[in-house]
Amino acid sequence: MRDVAIIGIGMTRFGELWEKSLRDLMVEAGLQAIADAGVDHVDSMYVGCMSSGLFVEQEHLASLASDFLGLGPIPATRVESACASGGLAVRSAFIEVASGLSEVVLAMGVEKMTDLAGDACTAALATAADQDYESFHGVTFPGLYAMIARAHMERYGTTSEQLAATAVKNHANGALNPLAQFRNRITVGDVLDSMMVADPLHVLDCSPVSDGAAAAVLCPLERAKKIAKKAPVRIAGVGHATDSLALYRRADLTRLPAVERSAQIALRMAKRKPSDIHLAEVHDCFTIAEVCAIEELGLVPRGQGGDAARSGLTARNGRSPVNTSGGLKSKGHPVGATGVAQIHEVVTQLRGEAGERQVRNARIGLTQNMGGSGGSSVVHVLELI
Amino acid sequence: MRDVAIIGIGMTRFGELWEKSLRDLMVEAGLQAIADAGVDHVDSMYVGCMSSGLFVEQEHLASLASDFLGLGPIPATRVESACASGGLAVRSAFIEVASGLSEVVLAMGVEKMTDLAGDACTAALATAADQDYESFHGVTFPGLYAMIARAHMERYGTTSEQLAATAVKNHANGALNPLAQFRNRITVGDVLDSMMVADPLHVLDCSPVSDGAAAAVLCPLERAKKIAKKAPVRIAGVGHATDSLALYRRADLTRLPAVERSAQIALRMAKRKPSDIHLAEVHDCFTIAEVCAIEELGLVPRGQGGDAARSGLTARNGRSPVNTSGGLKSKGHPVGATGVAQIHEVVTQLRGEAGERQVRNARIGLTQNMGGSGGSSVVHVLELI
Repeated sequence: MRDVAIIGIGMTRFGELWEKSLRDLMVEAGLQAIADAGVDHVDSMYVGCMSSGLFVEQEHLASLASDFLGLGPIPATRVESACASGGLAVRSAFIEVASGLSEVVLAMGVEKMTDLAGDACTAALATAADQDYESFHGVTFPGLYAMIARAHMERYGTTSEQLAATAVKNHANGALNPLAQFRNRITVGDVLDSMMVADPLHVLDCSPVSDGAAAAVLCPLERAKKIAKKAPVRIAGVGHATDSLALYRRADLTRLPAVERSAQIALRMAKRKPSDIHLAEVHDCFTIAEVCAIEELGLVPRGQGGDAARSGLTARNGRSPVNTSGGLKSKGHPVGATGVAQIHEVVTQLRGEAGERQVRNARIGLTQNMGGSGGSSVVHVLELI
Repeated sequence: MRDVAIIGIGMTRFGELWEKSLRDLMVEAGLQAIADAGVDHVDSMYVGCMSSGLFVEQEHLASLASDFLGLGPIPATRVESACASGGLAVRSAFIEVASGLSEVVLAMGVEKMTDLAGDACTAALATAADQDYESFHGVTFPGLYAMIARAHMERYGTTSEQLAATAVKNHANGALNPLAQFRNRITVGDVLDSMMVADPLHVLDCSPVSDGAAAAVLCPLERAKKIAKKAPVRIAGVGHATDSLALYRRADLTRLPAVERSAQIALRMAKRKPSDIHLAEVHDCFTIAEVCAIEELGLVPRGQGGDAARSGLTARNGRSPVNTSGGLKSKGHPVGATGVAQIHEVVTQLRGEAGERQVRNARIGLTQNMGGSGGSSVVHVLELI
């Protein structure tokens, strides 16, 4: 397998983008990434999207993207793994370049969610859970993650204040990200005073419903060294793992085994250990998800994820900066786009282009993108070369 | 890139399978393929499915399949390119094995369509067309293919009788396929007397709504020679190409450029020409689609696809047997499963296991799987080693 690098990135603003359609979003992010890479052609492309069928009644998405991007008849594949669809698009593009089949491959993630009203949107998202054994019976994602949060609180003494501190940190980062959906700072009091969605999760523990797209251009590392306009970022490791969709099939509600396994695979490929990571973008669809994810990634000891944000460990200037982009909580969470947006943030940081939210001397970054309540996870380790 | 072979296949019966759920179908086909291959593990898997979200409100499909197949935490990726999703799953598995990342990869296609009533099913399928410029305005797939048929009739003098002869041939083949949805023989008169759906297409020009799944196990060719229980079939060529979803963006309604291009890529990789092909499974979602496809594949000269079935050219014992399985028309068309079911038929034929419908001395076969009205196409060239 050949070494692979990222040579271009692009991203729309995330938010309620009433004036932009699904295809508009794909075209905007895709053209940005192609221009950033400075390439004059693309050999193949991947689109990660969770459910354009339910959200806007459009399947066959990758052909549509290729056509409206002006890329013509190239192979174009849509991949789906619920909210991990974006990370999976990057992994798929990585494999195609590494295999030698293609040279320049575009990976994109997109979701246009705000065309559906609240209840229908919640129902569409619930298709990432087990329809027969979970969703059909009325459980939704806030409910599933609330059960995880309650179990973590019981086991490790994690508190609502600690969860709230995670949201506060991510909003502080997002306030510095011009592409973020919510750029307001919040306090622990704001979170605890906000509406209870599914006890113990308040609405400010939850990521929002968003529209948006992000894209990245991949090519062989050797070619990247010759043609890249900006510093190429090597994809040093890729890990992908799955688990049961349904929580009832898990041995321990406080664990996300797919996250641990995908991280182990990616770190082994990259020949790195968790302490080598200078910054991480992790999947904080709910505050408790960030808490569990940083434990599974090995960034904190098990059971100590709760206090990481409150103690400053995962702050932008902490020992292990997490979600410098604002995370899903503040940047927004157009589900299929999120995994690629995480790549966008880490590449931006490694290039030293993150402006006010820049992490100093960042040379090795990690992204962790989750599907559902941990039914899938994709991890990438990125290194400045 | 490594050479890749198919060492196992599995397939459910296609039809209105009221007693089987989406996951039942995936498990049945997947376990059959794994048993047929005789492998004791699978490293990674792909599921091709067009729209389990719209059909049964279940996304995150690949993790679900892996879990219920007992494959555990392996990477599992769902791919989608409308009705070409199955072919795309095989192509994706091919790339992952060829790249060296994985050894044994399961490719699967599935669709559970009959849980939706007629109109809702037609609407779900219409998401493979361009939502903004076609589906929203009320056009459906019978209407789109009727326009293609009318253009072909005007240009080349193709007749309704010729189209009907295509359905007659495919039903004659399907009658010999124990897995086919419709095992009844029909006549040209039956087709012409059947209800007009979208002039000039009668209901017997159209493939049905179906449930079903098919699967194949892929591994490196060198490993296949050592471990395969049955004769391994090499994937000699793979081609994938796209086009606009919307017909209005095409230069010529009688052409399917993505089919031509995907075939050229696959044949070039296989170092074969159309006349080398001993049998082909092509995407006859409507009779006119088979007519256009065999022209684009180079099996007949342009404009002469109409008469191929009537003249006996594409009959099971003709010079170019096409759709010996019964095709989508008679075997059934669970859209995401179809591309893998085509692979299932060609492997069955190359192994000499096709029973009453066996093509003599078949050593090289081709599959062509189409998305929408030609917005994507995936072609595989398979060779007995």
